[in-house]
Amino acid sequence: MTELLAVAHNPDRLDEQDVKDEIRKLFDSRSLRAGKYGPLFVSLWKTASQRVTGGKLLRPRLLLGAFEALSATGEHGRAFRAAAVRIAAAVEVLHYSFLLHDDVIDGDLLRRGRSNLIGAVLEERRAQRQVVRASADASADGRDLHWARTSGILMGDMLLSDAHQVFARESLPGPTRIRLLDLLEHTITESIAGEHLDVALCDGVTTPDLETVLAMTRLKTATYTFEMTLKAAAMLAGAARHVEDVVGDVGTRLGSAFQLQDDLLSTFGNASEHGKDAFSDLREGKETAIIAFARTTDRWQKIAPLFGDRELSATDAMQMRTHLSECGAEAFTRALVSDQLHATRSMLDSPETGIPGQLSRFLDQVVQKIEERQS
Amino acid sequence: MTELLAVAHNPDRLDEQDVKDEIRKLFDSRSLRAGKYGPLFVSLWKTASQRVTGGKLLRPRLLLGAFEALSATGEHGRAFRAAAVRIAAAVEVLHYSFLLHDDVIDGDLLRRGRSNLIGAVLEERRAQRQVVRASADASADGRDLHWARTSGILMGDMLLSDAHQVFARESLPGPTRIRLLDLLEHTITESIAGEHLDVALCDGVTTPDLETVLAMTRLKTATYTFEMTLKAAAMLAGAARHVEDVVGDVGTRLGSAFQLQDDLLSTFGNASEHGKDAFSDLREGKETAIIAFARTTDRWQKIAPLFGDRELSATDAMQMRTHLSECGAEAFTRALVSDQLHATRSMLDSPETGIPGQLSRFLDQVVQKIEERQS
Repeated sequence: MTELLAVAHNPDRLDEQDVKDEIRKLFDSRSLRAGKYGPLFVSLWKTASQRVTGGKLLRPRLLLGAFEALSATGEHGRAFRAAAVRIAAAVEVLHYSFLLHDDVIDGDLLRRGRSNLIGAVLEERRAQRQVVRASADASADGRDLHWARTSGILMGDMLLSDAHQVFARESLPGPTRIRLLDLLEHTITESIAGEHLDVALCDGVTTPDLETVLAMTRLKTATYTFEMTLKAAAMLAGAARHVEDVVGDVGTRLGSAFQLQDDLLSTFGNASEHGKDAFSDLREGKETAIIAFARTTDRWQKIAPLFGDRELSATDAMQMRTHLSECGAEAFTRALVSDQLHATRSMLDSPETGIPGQLSRFLDQVVQKIEERQS
Repeated sequence: MTELLAVAHNPDRLDEQDVKDEIRKLFDSRSLRAGKYGPLFVSLWKTASQRVTGGKLLRPRLLLGAFEALSATGEHGRAFRAAAVRIAAAVEVLHYSFLLHDDVIDGDLLRRGRSNLIGAVLEERRAQRQVVRASADASADGRDLHWARTSGILMGDMLLSDAHQVFARESLPGPTRIRLLDLLEHTITESIAGEHLDVALCDGVTTPDLETVLAMTRLKTATYTFEMTLKAAAMLAGAARHVEDVVGDVGTRLGSAFQLQDDLLSTFGNASEHGKDAFSDLREGKETAIIAFARTTDRWQKIAPLFGDRELSATDAMQMRTHLSECGAEAFTRALVSDQLHATRSMLDSPETGIPGQLSRFLDQVVQKIEERQS
């Protein structure tokens, strides 16, 4: 998705660079302030700057793309562009915070094949103790891991707090300020409820049926990635309330389609293109719509014994993939994506929804990018 | 400390009940909203309402006590009383959030002898699976514990977010609003830096010298419990800036004294009075000022072998206590408390600091309560 929305950008405005600068400014000021609290805290911020930032800025791009499509012709909108850049950066910082706590919860040390913050802190600590992977002292190894995970929890807390601070300090007209805070509250509640449901599925606390898996997907990802960004853009651009409602609905559909595509790519895609570990979802036993559908078919008895096997071989994984395709789970999930994108296009094309033309064209490009997505 | 500040209260104002009502309102509205996300999220909020709330409200009492002492004679202050109650409740919610993440980090299932949120979620889950403590299925037991700890992380995130929302929504005059947000940011940074240092001590990442232990104590506890509450009170009451600075300094000293007293009580106090597990600090290997001093004495070689022993017997614990007293660590720590309280009294008595009389009397009562503290 690196190129997502690139076409919609006016290169003169350098949105992406503005957001990067804003995020850099936040990390730099926090790193500087950390100096008051000793070298360990400075080191934590330094590692966070290196390991947490630097993603594809999907959320800021969506927010600013929609904001500019809505405000290109209005004075009001242009006046709020600096606020939109700051809020876009804050949404990205919120995303970092979620990723950090997800990694703590999942026990992950890697993200996209590279050490995440937890993995990097662990490596630093091991280097200090001059051990490579595991040492003769299991208790010391346990303390190293505890230290690394704690760093993930605490940096997640810092960034969650920092994202709120940006929203809280924005001086906007009273009602917009409060509605933007409402949106933040709603979004965080849904994202946390979604993560809670995801872990409930993973820990066997709830039944992995399709309805639950789809609800989890929507809550955990769609809300903060698409619904929030598009609604915030509409608020900041001073768009009419019905536009805000429509882009919220569009965001929920796009977000669900985006996550389902992600699941499809992860299981059926070309790992050399999407860049994730091939079959990691199958190895980790991730409850996706694909799996939820497969569970309802006879073929599940062939899939179940290997699902969630951390040592799954490439051959067995390829076999599972064939089962998942032949039982209809692949086609079913692709149809879900198409349905969501088709419904979005209908909303964008209908004169009744009253979405301004430029925004409609921008969102149409997003639909197309999700359809064509290979990474 | 249940009775701390009770004398300073005007019973007609029912501050404590107002804060309790405010916290209850927050938990009720969040529990109601959780209904949208299914029974598991409702259950998490219900458990949080039962296991997280209900402390001694030390922080709200300090904030409102100082606020009333400063605003009793001013119209401005009285006009902001409702805001002070809301901010006092938010500080308590922030405290809950810190406790939850501390318990996750420390792996604790109990707080003051009763199951904390994590312990309660674990019990609920075991009851559903109809197992008592550990079952024949170690992997399922592991998932239960993972589910319980994840609940602690996510509820901590929710409450951290909620505390920020209260601060963000307060409509105060522009400069006061921003300065209150600065105070929140400063406080959270110090509390997290303090927790980071505490875990660094516990995991052997940094040397447990006295300077580090005292810095940790101040950052982790004094800032948010005393400095923040007193400074917020001064801001909300519209006090002069120098009063705010002085109460900030007083707060740092009182907070350090309070935490050192806590450590003394935990090691040398009467467990039946203070209500904590006797000798839990010694069993957990908690790095306190008492221990940091003892490490510098010859007696440490007798203490070290038992320090941090989870199975420490009562007899051995009593022996350690004797060593800690005889090596001078007890007297040294008591002197630190006295020094902080003495310095506070001097500040309160000095006409140069210009603290209004009623606030000075209120803070003097707090000093006295810390001196006399037995629980």
